[in-house]
Amino acid sequence: MKLTPHILTLLLAWALPCLALADPLPSWNSGAAKQAILHFVQKTTDPDSKDFVPPQERIAVFDNDGTLWPENPLPFQIAFSIDELRRQLPEHPEWKDDKFIQSALAGDMAPLLADHYKGLFHLVAVTGSGMTTAAFAARVKDWLATAQHPKFAMPYDQLTYQPMQEVLAYLRSNGFKTFLVSGGGSDFMRVFSERVYGIVPEQVLGSHAAVVYELKTNGPALLKTMNNLCMVDGPGKPEAIHQFIGRRPIACFGNSDGDKAMLEYTTISNPHPSLGIIVHHTDSEREYAYDADAKSSGKLVAALAEALKRNWIVVDMKTDWSTIFTK
Amino acid sequence: MKLTPHILTLLLAWALPCLALADPLPSWNSGAAKQAILHFVQKTTDPDSKDFVPPQERIAVFDNDGTLWPENPLPFQIAFSIDELRRQLPEHPEWKDDKFIQSALAGDMAPLLADHYKGLFHLVAVTGSGMTTAAFAARVKDWLATAQHPKFAMPYDQLTYQPMQEVLAYLRSNGFKTFLVSGGGSDFMRVFSERVYGIVPEQVLGSHAAVVYELKTNGPALLKTMNNLCMVDGPGKPEAIHQFIGRRPIACFGNSDGDKAMLEYTTISNPHPSLGIIVHHTDSEREYAYDADAKSSGKLVAALAEALKRNWIVVDMKTDWSTIFTK
Repeated sequence: MKLTPHILTLLLAWALPCLALADPLPSWNSGAAKQAILHFVQKTTDPDSKDFVPPQERIAVFDNDGTLWPENPLPFQIAFSIDELRRQLPEHPEWKDDKFIQSALAGDMAPLLADHYKGLFHLVAVTGSGMTTAAFAARVKDWLATAQHPKFAMPYDQLTYQPMQEVLAYLRSNGFKTFLVSGGGSDFMRVFSERVYGIVPEQVLGSHAAVVYELKTNGPALLKTMNNLCMVDGPGKPEAIHQFIGRRPIACFGNSDGDKAMLEYTTISNPHPSLGIIVHHTDSEREYAYDADAKSSGKLVAALAEALKRNWIVVDMKTDWSTIFTK
Repeated sequence: MKLTPHILTLLLAWALPCLALADPLPSWNSGAAKQAILHFVQKTTDPDSKDFVPPQERIAVFDNDGTLWPENPLPFQIAFSIDELRRQLPEHPEWKDDKFIQSALAGDMAPLLADHYKGLFHLVAVTGSGMTTAAFAARVKDWLATAQHPKFAMPYDQLTYQPMQEVLAYLRSNGFKTFLVSGGGSDFMRVFSERVYGIVPEQVLGSHAAVVYELKTNGPALLKTMNNLCMVDGPGKPEAIHQFIGRRPIACFGNSDGDKAMLEYTTISNPHPSLGIIVHHTDSEREYAYDADAKSSGKLVAALAEALKRNWIVVDMKTDWSTIFTK
């Protein structure tokens, strides 16, 4: 068959409605959450809509732990840090005087969670400083290749939420830029963010400390230090969004009180239409069920209490998601 | 005429070589610098070349002051800060004890340039803190609308270098992401970077200090402080590139010793092919001529001395550029 313009027109006339009908969020059950996401994307990308947003202002921000992948029994970077503590312990006799490290090695997490996760950030800093950025990335890569999640017996980076992967792809195919804005370390997340989420390194905003540039004989290197630790959590999220992105997001996806300020910054008095989404962990069978429980990572109390007033959509994992994990 | 596939093929066969022949850098005279830029872009974007670089890794970084627009007689943000000092002076009697402020008001710049521009950064911090980010942006916008450059009698943001605007556009049309990496403040540059350079806010990396998030009755606000000042100059440039971009650039454009570390980071032992360009100010008539002169901003000694060894291309503004400013 020769492709004449007439046949091309017929083909297009047939294909376009099919494309429009294809469900971009197949792992989301019908319901208010799915409808809200679809409606928001449609109205902000329709040039004839009063809610149209120019592509360069379509910024969507995503928390990582508990929003794109699990954060229990421990945030994955904490699991990495504890495995690193065990691996490096013989070289660090001085760690016997470090109460946070001793708690971690004993499996006693409560002291690490107190005072806004101060102990956890300390572990992350100890196991993430004193080496070059390249050496750290190699350690994370090795760990991801070998470690397994205790409940799901899978490599950690294969445990992302399929419904959220669909949201990331759907937003990007509609001209949105998707950013990770997470308490996890930038240098940790960048090892896998592009491969696993399709999020390029320059769109990863995580906790970070100063690096020191040095030109060595084999080339430039950046040494990771513990100085000027910047924690991207709570109010630190809108602060980091300003420093790194420089404009307000119009869509925000989080799951805990640590995302409340970022949800506010996205949705309150935004001159553009905006979308705030909270992933509520309600499925103890397929994943975990927690919110106010102090023993779980990812406390969700204050943000949940404000959701109705702020028009934030609460996703019920158990009923809204037909599939949890990416196969 | 009916557009049959045959005619379309003919049209394409005619149009493609014309597109290829159009000069993307018309304000560059023929010479080694122009040739180096064209050759670099061609080889890194040709899928059949051994030097091909995937689009997501095509990161190009640009210094701003002295590279994309002038930096004399003063960097433009310093001119803004001094105008702001004069404007705010009546409200700040305590400034009479500030030696840097007194030097600036007296037009005595030497003390401000000493110790790695410590005084200049102090002025920038004083006139860029204690207000919200929105209030600061409004001040910069007002200033750009009214102030004029003393030599060229033009609004500052109309004094960008046409040859560099062509490089920015040429790189972007070939799938490169263009970033500003500058000692100037992020919050200052973001007021005009998108309009003037086509560089979106999230691709602006400038000096910055902590902001503090607050939810006010009229919505979220970020208060600019002087805490944790991060100067993006010298080694601070590769350090900021790592924190903000998370991978090494393959093209770097600078003009002073403050760009030397960024040039090294881009070009030394980079697994990809790379391009390092130094804009040398050699045209006292159409712009300025300076390099080792301590009275000018933008000292260029150490980077110039290493250019040959490092294969950095030195652009001679006088002979390489047929036009200086964007009309």
